[in-house]
Amino acid sequence: MTDPTIAPSPSKPRPTKDRLIFAAANLFSERGYHGVGLAEILSQAQAPKGSLYHHFPNGKPDLALASATWASDQMLLLIAASFEPADSFTEGATTLCHKLAKLFDYTGKWSGCPVSSTLFEGPDNAPFQRHAAHLFEGWISEVKYHGQRLGFTEEDAATTAQSFYMLLQGGWQLARVRRDSDVIRALPALLKLGDTC
Amino acid sequence: MTDPTIAPSPSKPRPTKDRLIFAAANLFSERGYHGVGLAEILSQAQAPKGSLYHHFPNGKPDLALASATWASDQMLLLIAASFEPADSFTEGATTLCHKLAKLFDYTGKWSGCPVSSTLFEGPDNAPFQRHAAHLFEGWISEVKYHGQRLGFTEEDAATTAQSFYMLLQGGWQLARVRRDSDVIRALPALLKLGDTC
Repeated sequence: MTDPTIAPSPSKPRPTKDRLIFAAANLFSERGYHGVGLAEILSQAQAPKGSLYHHFPNGKPDLALASATWASDQMLLLIAASFEPADSFTEGATTLCHKLAKLFDYTGKWSGCPVSSTLFEGPDNAPFQRHAAHLFEGWISEVKYHGQRLGFTEEDAATTAQSFYMLLQGGWQLARVRRDSDVIRALPALLKLGDTC
Repeated sequence: MTDPTIAPSPSKPRPTKDRLIFAAANLFSERGYHGVGLAEILSQAQAPKGSLYHHFPNGKPDLALASATWASDQMLLLIAASFEPADSFTEGATTLCHKLAKLFDYTGKWSGCPVSSTLFEGPDNAPFQRHAAHLFEGWISEVKYHGQRLGFTEEDAATTAQSFYMLLQGGWQLARVRRDSDVIRALPALLKLGDTC
């Protein structure tokens, strides 16, 4: 795993707070918010319980919000690394899908979207829903920005960015059940591009 | 809620086994497999604990597989009710998206896909993953069948059915974070249709 935009190296020494966030993001992605206990997170992060409440006074919910933000920032890095060098939207989308397919294979072919698997814990948790909305809209806005930069009208860029986001989420899920990252590599060809795209 | 393909009426008297499956499907959709306890399912189903192990000898995992199957069968009913009377794929897809948007509003704007939220409980549960794959491939095959019936080549029907599945899954998720079922109603316009479509 040499691509810094794919995933941080777990072997690299990192501060306790970062280790807690990284462990939580990985565990929540695998089994969801309710499927992971604090003891397991502390154990994987090799962190004492006191450090959890020092960095995250409200405990598990705070840690979930922070780990979703961290994971979302990784996605924004992937989007930037894929679209900034691209000469066309399709080229950027293709690079992003190949990076995500590599990440999918790296994470073991079953982990979910690190934001939705962490924050979609039920209809009653408004802060989680608002945070997920904020993070996902950030991904869509970043892709829309590159669409406009690459010549789309604002309307085409907005529609294409939202469509690409939905194909990525649905495609990641289909890749999970098929255990086949090629589902993700095939997504750019499914994008319906507007006249200016 | 008068459309029988939208959701069964919780008020209609039903056998214990059906009540257990219906309660489990609803609760798992809201909070995922790990977020729901057996006591809560039994309480919502108004069923005694003995009845659970009578109908589902292995308990919670058996109930999860059965509730995912039940929910998937509801989706197959929706697909049939939407595409069978349709004169074009786009007409069928539009009807299905409107039915799903209605269901989304009915379920409270936060419930997840009843199959993925029930069965995506972690990377180690192969029976859950295989069952989810089986159910999702069933949805895709059903839509592909209608695509061919409505004039697509087999290849275009397969590509369009898979693309539509991914847009529906990703669109349902975006509708959840935005709490806006119009995201689902807008999906058919995002489908890239092949030459024969």
